[in-house]
Amino acid sequence: MASTVGKVIKCKAAVAWEAGKPLVIEEVEVAPPQAMEVRIKILFTSLCHTDVYFWEAKGQNPVFPRIFGHEAGGIVESVGEGVTELAPGDHVLPVFTGECKECAHCKSAESNMCDLLRINTDRGVMIGDGQSRFSINGKPIFHFVGTSTFSEYTVIHEGCVAKINPAAPLDKVCVLSCGISTGLGATINVAKPPKGSTVAIFGLGAVGLAAAEGARLAGASRIIGVDLNSDRFEAARKFGCTEFVNPKEHTKPVQQVLAEMTNGGVDRSVECTGNINAMIQAFECVHDGWGVAVLVGVPHKDAEFKTHPMNFLNERTLRGTFFGNYKPRTDLPSVVEKYMSGELELDKFITHSVPFSEINTAFDLMLKGESLRCIIRMDE
Amino acid sequence: MASTVGKVIKCKAAVAWEAGKPLVIEEVEVAPPQAMEVRIKILFTSLCHTDVYFWEAKGQNPVFPRIFGHEAGGIVESVGEGVTELAPGDHVLPVFTGECKECAHCKSAESNMCDLLRINTDRGVMIGDGQSRFSINGKPIFHFVGTSTFSEYTVIHEGCVAKINPAAPLDKVCVLSCGISTGLGATINVAKPPKGSTVAIFGLGAVGLAAAEGARLAGASRIIGVDLNSDRFEAARKFGCTEFVNPKEHTKPVQQVLAEMTNGGVDRSVECTGNINAMIQAFECVHDGWGVAVLVGVPHKDAEFKTHPMNFLNERTLRGTFFGNYKPRTDLPSVVEKYMSGELELDKFITHSVPFSEINTAFDLMLKGESLRCIIRMDE
Repeated sequence: MASTVGKVIKCKAAVAWEAGKPLVIEEVEVAPPQAMEVRIKILFTSLCHTDVYFWEAKGQNPVFPRIFGHEAGGIVESVGEGVTELAPGDHVLPVFTGECKECAHCKSAESNMCDLLRINTDRGVMIGDGQSRFSINGKPIFHFVGTSTFSEYTVIHEGCVAKINPAAPLDKVCVLSCGISTGLGATINVAKPPKGSTVAIFGLGAVGLAAAEGARLAGASRIIGVDLNSDRFEAARKFGCTEFVNPKEHTKPVQQVLAEMTNGGVDRSVECTGNINAMIQAFECVHDGWGVAVLVGVPHKDAEFKTHPMNFLNERTLRGTFFGNYKPRTDLPSVVEKYMSGELELDKFITHSVPFSEINTAFDLMLKGESLRCIIRMDE
Repeated sequence: MASTVGKVIKCKAAVAWEAGKPLVIEEVEVAPPQAMEVRIKILFTSLCHTDVYFWEAKGQNPVFPRIFGHEAGGIVESVGEGVTELAPGDHVLPVFTGECKECAHCKSAESNMCDLLRINTDRGVMIGDGQSRFSINGKPIFHFVGTSTFSEYTVIHEGCVAKINPAAPLDKVCVLSCGISTGLGATINVAKPPKGSTVAIFGLGAVGLAAAEGARLAGASRIIGVDLNSDRFEAARKFGCTEFVNPKEHTKPVQQVLAEMTNGGVDRSVECTGNINAMIQAFECVHDGWGVAVLVGVPHKDAEFKTHPMNFLNERTLRGTFFGNYKPRTDLPSVVEKYMSGELELDKFITHSVPFSEINTAFDLMLKGESLRCIIRMDE
């Protein structure tokens, strides 16, 4: 096969021509990577709520036509000028937020909110030259969060690509690109439940279940799932949940229900819904003296967090996290290793799998709430 | 001198007969310590805002006649049944909150909010038998926060007494009983500023200056004092403050002023006023990615903390603290040692000293805002 390095690649991509309309598999042209960029052959991608959210573009800035997708696994095809940490053949996970390794955030041990490559959902072009690398008949198709993995080939900034163990199965570890790492890291890196502690998880979607998986790995004794949909409880047992609370089944505030179940409050809580009331509940349900609540879910832009300040003064801690506080390039390889060692279980998150030609089925499954993660096989 | 053990001691105490009226030095009878209690000869006591606050009893539950005072240094005179960790002659600091060493909070490495001996400002009696140990002509005089140090002798639960190095000068280390440890610990134990970091301190009273002293000890490079009273700025330099902001002198919100001074926000902030707006400012002024804000000041009972939840999601942390997270018996001895080694400077907090007979002068000085700490010499 002739080398594609330095040349435009023609391949299939699922293009969102307009908000909320089914994606269309098109032949697109993918330009070669420019300075600090890499071109990646995507083998597997999965669908995350964030794709659906920006595809629906309800109240969001509509950027169309666009290629969505940000959870994926692939292999580097070629690299642009100045790329030093990746080479053709490397197995990688693209990430929607980056790590330039040079800004104050990247240099801080505590932050992963890179100044240069922090998520930007409005930008549809590469940061290097303000252009798209995708086109159809010369007309640009926009990128999404710098990844656009619903394409057989995509171009990504080097800082948004994690190089991982080539032995790792990409059809499994691709889910670590976003939601699963977000929930897992929220618990492991931020809430840090001590062994034997009690953890409440608000919201039992994929992110919340990953937070529960994190609590299981940390050795929590009680993991209490909180969700308005009791249908989720049975499946959540596989992720370590030991008890469940549906706030709709109680007349008392859920904070009080949890306090009564736990002799004063849970040791840690992780909020994965983005609903402002759940955020307040997740904070107020932690034990005084040592309780830590972690916010993961993204709130409505007009939301207001309100609580009595004595809830803080009584030695409670509230923290937020972004991508589970993982630095994409530095930390994701070790999360992959946690899976390879058998410690972290990923297979249970993968409820469905479809060929690329049926990508719209993945959207349907998520919209109906039937899937956790649906893997999209790019070569079919 | 005949032993006083087991006998009632007659001595002088400053009695608050009613709210807001000058204290009156009276001869009181101090009963012997009962089970788990110790009787202490107070040598030095100092005045803290909390004494003044409950003496004024504006909106507080009035408990009179009462003996105030909770920052002090003294020597154990005798011990009651079951007391094992203290003996006559021990040098001690009474503390307004206790450490039973047996409850969930005492057993937690993270909490100092003892279930049994947590501060209770409404209680005027001993917890053992619900009685006061003070009386005048058989009529009880009430205790204050279990300490009542404005008396030559007082009776305190063993759990509220820290045994310290007998070489430590009690006229200095007595200020570690409350406010100074509260501010110091808020920074050192809770905010934990890294060496070279930038710390904002809201409120430059004694607690805030102790928080600044903590930042100085932690090696912060920039310590920014925030206060509505610019007269406090010059004195604050002695406590490590390097810069000052008076919110009244700016049209922009102080969060924004601080962000502009610090390239995006301070690394740590410590709120020592209890004003709800200052609390919100102290939180919102910390840097995204790694900023930690610590609340120390006690809020109004109707206060509501409000902020946009994205301020948390962007990896900011908000924590509250009580008594600087120090466990009174376990941790205070080592704070005294920090003073003995010259690391912690206490003398600069002590701006005045009066004999016991002039205790009302200490109240006047504090009400006029002229003193940080006024030591009251009990033997004069």
